[in-house]
Amino acid sequence: MDAITAFREERERLNEIVLKYGQKDIKRFFNLDSSVYKDGALPAKTKELLGLVGSLVLRCDDCILYHTIRCCEEGVTDEEFEETMTIGLIVGGSITIPHLRRAFKHWEELKVKQQEE
Amino acid sequence: MDAITAFREERERLNEIVLKYGQKDIKRFFNLDSSVYKDGALPAKTKELLGLVGSLVLRCDDCILYHTIRCCEEGVTDEEFEETMTIGLIVGGSITIPHLRRAFKHWEELKVKQQEE
Amino acid sequence: MDAITAFREERERLNEIVLKYGQKDIKRFFNLDSSVYKDGALPAKTKELLGLVGSLVLRCDDCILYHTIRCCEEGVTDEEFEETMTIGLIVGGSITIPHLRRAFKHWEELKVKQQEE
Amino acid sequence: MDAITAFREERERLNEIVLKYGQKDIKRFFNLDSSVYKDGALPAKTKELLGLVGSLVLRCDDCILYHTIRCCEEGVTDEEFEETMTIGLIVGGSITIPHLRRAFKHWEELKVKQQEE
Amino acid sequence: MDAITAFREERERLNEIVLKYGQKDIKRFFNLDSSVYKDGALPAKTKELLGLVGSLVLRCDDCILYHTIRCCEEGVTDEEFEETMTIGLIVGGSITIPHLRRAFKHWEELKVKQQEE
Amino acid sequence: MDAITAFREERERLNEIVLKYGQKDIKRFFNLDSSVYKDGALPAKTKELLGLVGSLVLRCDDCILYHTIRCCEEGVTDEEFEETMTIGLIVGGSITIPHLRRAFKHWEELKVKQQEE
Repeated sequence: MDAITAFREERERLNEIVLKYGQKDIKRFFNLDSSVYKDGALPAKTKELLGLVGSLVLRCDDCILYHTIRCCEEGVTDEEFEETMTIGLIVGGSITIPHLRRAFKHWEELKVKQQEE
Repeated sequence: MDAITAFREERERLNEIVLKYGQKDIKRFFNLDSSVYKDGALPAKTKELLGLVGSLVLRCDDCILYHTIRCCEEGVTDEEFEETMTIGLIVGGSITIPHLRRAFKHWEELKVKQQEE
Repeated sequence: MDAITAFREERERLNEIVLKYGQKDIKRFFNLDSSVYKDGALPAKTKELLGLVGSLVLRCDDCILYHTIRCCEEGVTDEEFEETMTIGLIVGGSITIPHLRRAFKHWEELKVKQQEE
Repeated sequence: MDAITAFREERERLNEIVLKYGQKDIKRFFNLDSSVYKDGALPAKTKELLGLVGSLVLRCDDCILYHTIRCCEEGVTDEEFEETMTIGLIVGGSITIPHLRRAFKHWEELKVKQQEE
Repeated sequence: MDAITAFREERERLNEIVLKYGQKDIKRFFNLDSSVYKDGALPAKTKELLGLVGSLVLRCDDCILYHTIRCCEEGVTDEEFEETMTIGLIVGGSITIPHLRRAFKHWEELKVKQQEE
Repeated sequence: MDAITAFREERERLNEIVLKYGQKDIKRFFNLDSSVYKDGALPAKTKELLGLVGSLVLRCDDCILYHTIRCCEEGVTDEEFEETMTIGLIVGGSITIPHLRRAFKHWEELKVKQQEE
């Protein structure tokens, strides 16, 4: 099983534990967290880029990977992905570099996976 | 003098002090910080939204105000501004609310200023 | 007008601007942000202490002041307030000290106000 | 060896290396870091909840796990744990979700371990 | 009264309020916070530069100003100050720029004050 | 292969992926990120200590390890390393402790490696 699939399955498994213990406010927040990335005045694609840059400057690997996968699904190009990462790098500084490295590695893996399909 | 104009003038004045002391690496960084928001695969407007969300989740009032002004100049609509702020709020949590309040206040002031011109 | 009253009025005024522009997801988040501090398995008083320590370690003056006011309303004692601030200081380090100073100043002002009433 | 036991042993082993190199100021800080969670005006249980919410909003997995274990030892209930996590989630936003997921997973493991004893 | 003197006096005044409410753990932390910047294997001057860069990347204006004053007292040169700020800028990114601007402004004020004495 | 060597090789491998996708602004930033640590008014050794404390308070394990290796190469002594870590601990608080533990573990490994050569 590749790293991307492993990430998705672990995420699914842990979300079930959260929802087992979580009461209505956690559930409401999880709903909000889906709702804000849907098409609106801004298209879903742009919103995923916004989620990506927010995740990069806050330096959360899981969040970066999640939005990287979603960007790929929304048809973000290499150039658009690179420009978004660069803005995150300039805003957040060299402390983001280890996360940026892993993000590009995952982007490459997603590209390879896409070509195999 | 209104708050927006005061902000711009103070920013200009302090940048001069930075550049008086700053050597080539600071200058190179300041150039990079302009370069990444220029039109590319993504239009400048989208890049300003990316800068805005990064500034909101990192909770920097000056950076938020700067990108709010730039968003207004790039023709961002009320709806686009609101959706970007909402993503920042969900990513960054209630700790961003004081900054979000001030951002909407400045957005309102920019709108009033625009109508007067 | 004292600083506490000025803070409350500005907060009220800016919330109106947020709600003027804000769509349903922002409103839902604002509702959630009230809901989680209500009496539950943990009493509202303990929840305000949790909000206070979260605000201190994330270093947001407005959030700290808001929870300081709420702690006072919930009957938190000087000793309970001090122990909560100390945990925030140890978790968050000396970078929290300027916020801790202002929090104790506001706590003192709230105590004086309470005695005058 | 389960994940909780492995965490405790690694923590013990590394603390020994810190104390081998660490001079008196590090040792004083480590003492302070124990002292602030002891029973006082607030009971140790409440203080562990404060440590937990601070660790969640600052997004440190090791610190969250440590306070999760201590909360379990102090008899925190599922409902109290859930309400504390929810406050951390609302304060810190969706960027805390990966940590919140792992915290609930560890909480579940601690519950299973407790029932086996 | 100039800004530097006003800062020192307010800091003194608020520290008294902290110590009025603060119990022994806060006092111990305040002692530690002085102790770590004293001459040791590294001279006090280098330690103030370390405190300065830590304050810049964590973006705390009061802490930056405090260490800027101390750097000036320890005889840090313009070039040493500038190189330290540049490292902080590269590590922490453009989000540190508003703080960097104010730091250079204060550095300039300290230089002027020094020449007047 | 030991952990230090594995870290270096992975870093090298991922940097190649970054540079495959990265355009000129990312490359310029990577150059800046090397440039600021070179000998200047402050020696490279002091600059590595500045990078180390910045990385510790921002809590990035990869960045801490990188600067720990560089500190070792620059001849930083145990005492200098310990004093720098202690300043980072006091500035950044107990939330830095898991990173501080791993940093001392790596420091120990580097010392062992050095003696074997």
